[in-house]
Amino acid sequence: MATQGQVITCKEVLVLAQLCMCEAAVAWEPNKPLTIEDVQVAPPQAGEVRVKILFTALCHTDAYTWSGKDPEGLFPCILGHEAAGIVESVGEGVTNVQTGDHVIPCYQAECGECKFCKSGKTNLCGKVRSATGVGVMLSDRKSRFSVNGKTIYHFMGTSTFSQYTVVHDVSVAKIDPKAPLEKVCLLGCGVPTGLGAVWNTAKVEPGSIVAIFGLGTVGLAVAEGAKAAGASRIIGVDLDSKKFDIAKNFGVTEFINPKEQEKPIQQVIVDLTDGGVDYSFECIGNVSVMRAALECCHKGWGTSVIVGVAASGQEISTRPFQLVTGRVWKGTAFGGFKSRSQVPMLVDKYLNKEIKIDEYITHNLTLAEINKAFDLMHEGGCLRCVLSVHD
Amino acid sequence: MATQGQVITCKEVLVLAQLCMCEAAVAWEPNKPLTIEDVQVAPPQAGEVRVKILFTALCHTDAYTWSGKDPEGLFPCILGHEAAGIVESVGEGVTNVQTGDHVIPCYQAECGECKFCKSGKTNLCGKVRSATGVGVMLSDRKSRFSVNGKTIYHFMGTSTFSQYTVVHDVSVAKIDPKAPLEKVCLLGCGVPTGLGAVWNTAKVEPGSIVAIFGLGTVGLAVAEGAKAAGASRIIGVDLDSKKFDIAKNFGVTEFINPKEQEKPIQQVIVDLTDGGVDYSFECIGNVSVMRAALECCHKGWGTSVIVGVAASGQEISTRPFQLVTGRVWKGTAFGGFKSRSQVPMLVDKYLNKEIKIDEYITHNLTLAEINKAFDLMHEGGCLRCVLSVHD
Ligand SMILES: NC(=O)c1ccc[n+]([C@@H]2O[C@H](COP(=O)([O-])OP(=O)(O)OC[C@H]3O[C@@H](n4cnc5c(N)ncnc54)[C@H](O)[C@@H]3O)[C@@H](O)[C@H]2O)c1
Ligand SMILES: NC(=O)c1ccc[n+]([C@@H]2O[C@H](COP(=O)([O-])OP(=O)(O)OC[C@H]3O[C@@H](n4cnc5c(N)ncnc54)[C@H](O)[C@@H]3O)[C@@H](O)[C@H]2O)c1
Ligand SMILES: [Zn+2]
Ligand SMILES: [Zn+2]
Ligand SMILES: [Zn+2]
Ligand SMILES: [Zn+2]
Repeated sequence: MATQGQVITCKEVLVLAQLCMCEAAVAWEPNKPLTIEDVQVAPPQAGEVRVKILFTALCHTDAYTWSGKDPEGLFPCILGHEAAGIVESVGEGVTNVQTGDHVIPCYQAECGECKFCKSGKTNLCGKVRSATGVGVMLSDRKSRFSVNGKTIYHFMGTSTFSQYTVVHDVSVAKIDPKAPLEKVCLLGCGVPTGLGAVWNTAKVEPGSIVAIFGLGTVGLAVAEGAKAAGASRIIGVDLDSKKFDIAKNFGVTEFINPKEQEKPIQQVIVDLTDGGVDYSFECIGNVSVMRAALECCHKGWGTSVIVGVAASGQEISTRPFQLVTGRVWKGTAFGGFKSRSQVPMLVDKYLNKEIKIDEYITHNLTLAEINKAFDLMHEGGCLRCVLSVHD
Repeated sequence: MATQGQVITCKEVLVLAQLCMCEAAVAWEPNKPLTIEDVQVAPPQAGEVRVKILFTALCHTDAYTWSGKDPEGLFPCILGHEAAGIVESVGEGVTNVQTGDHVIPCYQAECGECKFCKSGKTNLCGKVRSATGVGVMLSDRKSRFSVNGKTIYHFMGTSTFSQYTVVHDVSVAKIDPKAPLEKVCLLGCGVPTGLGAVWNTAKVEPGSIVAIFGLGTVGLAVAEGAKAAGASRIIGVDLDSKKFDIAKNFGVTEFINPKEQEKPIQQVIVDLTDGGVDYSFECIGNVSVMRAALECCHKGWGTSVIVGVAASGQEISTRPFQLVTGRVWKGTAFGGFKSRSQVPMLVDKYLNKEIKIDEYITHNLTLAEINKAFDLMHEGGCLRCVLSVHD
């Protein structure tokens, strides 16, 4: 693709010239291996940005939608939401980025103008949700992707398993061009989610006792965030004892494998901590663990944050007495970070060696190997697998 | 009883002289009418205070334990926890009150020294809980009440359905003697619970939209608290449309009777408020309503506070997505007020006409009429019934 810099004189030709062909991994049906296709990517319309994706990682939401369990999943689609790239072209009226800018696509938009953005209380921008929730772009409620004339849906407003993607201008964060894109792509989802759960949602104070359920990328980022916040004890809980060694490097000070305990895990933790933890984080997506995470909190003030995403239709429950006696139940999306304004700050923190990223990357593959990457997610040894998209 | 001022020379006699006989309403068995008995009240031991109760109201926790549904209920016992009186005598080492002080017994103690009190994060003092939870006093784990030699258990560390009661010194708030005890007895439970749910637990800000489920004393006190906090809309929800007229006087601006709605109440409220309320309060004790109260909150920041006490064994549930998208689920006990240090402040607010009390008192009876008072609680027209204890 080489649309830029071309001298184009006629409007008809302009549009044609701006259509681009590239490779993308298409999910045609739930649970069927993705296939690499030649995808036509339409030019960015007003308020849209076309991004050349250089590196993308896989996250559980991709696997969840691919599995067919997500009732809102639309097929065929191009999955992917944890990535980094370079702006190829912008549509009319786009002012926040320009061709050549290094960017991270943001599944959580930030418009600065909607009720949510203006509230000062949440990062859940509402501007483009009605479109991204159904796999299209806001302006004409159409997709920008097609394969041989067949429409392919967008996913989470990002669709990063593609060499080129089109996103809304409110869904792209401009970052320092010095940042290595093969690393900072992780700042598109998992790492900020964990850090922000601690810093923005729970607001952990120095000296706090923290419990983390699930020591994948998100749980480890919670550990890192808790350590940075000055937590005095960071108790990691995972069914896979192999996670314990790596978790130490992220700040976890104690480990419990529920399989090795006779008592319910919440009781084990209450006993270990003279009444319970100050903060707990569920980073798995299991509703029974969410209950345990609440119930291991200290009476009077313990706060539990749900980070994991449970399968559709599942419910959490507990006795209301748990809340009446002072525990607080919360959740977080993208760690409460405002994407466009705060992702660049996280990139800077990485460049200043204040947060880790490299340590979460256990595998590197190419886009063509994406099905292998999905398989890797089920292996204990894999945290994040980064795909090089143009190799 | 006239133990005070007597010259007593011998320790044996001292103790005997200090035993007092008085009338109290005893709950012998679950669900059986209380009977007025001549009860022997032992003298206050070290760290204890004997209080002459002048006025007591009834609250739902009394009715709940009396009904036999409370698995921790112990019989025979003397119920009652919303009252006011005068200190008759104090045990060794008591310094915070003395004979003649006007006081409100506090089922929620405040010692100032335990982990809870020192946390600065909760009002749930732990000092005497191990004793009050099982109907006895801390020092010797015995009751101070007996009828013809048979032990009668304490209740909630207060047992105010008695002309004299013994409480721990950490469970009694000294108040301005100018305050009318027949009114301020309500500051022992329901009114502070509602006000504090708004001021301490939710921290409602000016301009907020609030929904209140249940317009009994607690719900009305929530309305009053929300109005004082500057809420812009206060939506009252009750199955009994007769509550609506009185609720207006407490600040409720809109009313919904779920029985008159086709859609689920949470949907009705979300539609009425462009996405949901900022704060909701469940003041009934119904677990399905607790769910509705959470789910009528605005995405991104809506906070729901559980105030009602559900029957033992019942559970709340919801989809975790409700929390992941920014709603917060909390609860409150005694409105988060620190009892000994803050109840006197509420008495002052009443004396300064900053909070209502008289308006909650719909009935006045005597202790002898207590069974009638329990019956009244099931009538829509009754908010609080105050019993005169010495008439
Ligand atoms: N809220 C958000 O914005 C957001 C963003 C990103 C990811 N997530 C969610 O966070 C969760 C974690 O993501 P991840 O990438 O770290 O996943 P992961 O699969 O790498 O890690 C999960 C860990 O939990 C452990 N585990 C599984 N069941 C367990 C149990 N019953 N008890 C204890 N440990 C158990 C696994 O061994 C694994 O180590 C996922 O549900 C994901 O969808 C949420
Ligand atoms: N958390 C605490 O510290 C604390 C302290 C005091 C009281 N409480 C609890 O607060 C609750 C309320 O106390 P109260 O004295 O105000 O009770 P109340 O019985 O006077 O008021 C309850 C109101 O709820 C209404 N109601 C019942 N079911 C309803 C439904 N399904 N939908 C809508 N409205 C419904 C009733 O008509 C009534 O007006 C009780 O559960 C009580 O035990 C808690
Ligand atoms: Zn993700
Ligand atoms: Zn917005
Ligand atoms: Zn009460
Ligand atoms: Zn205490």
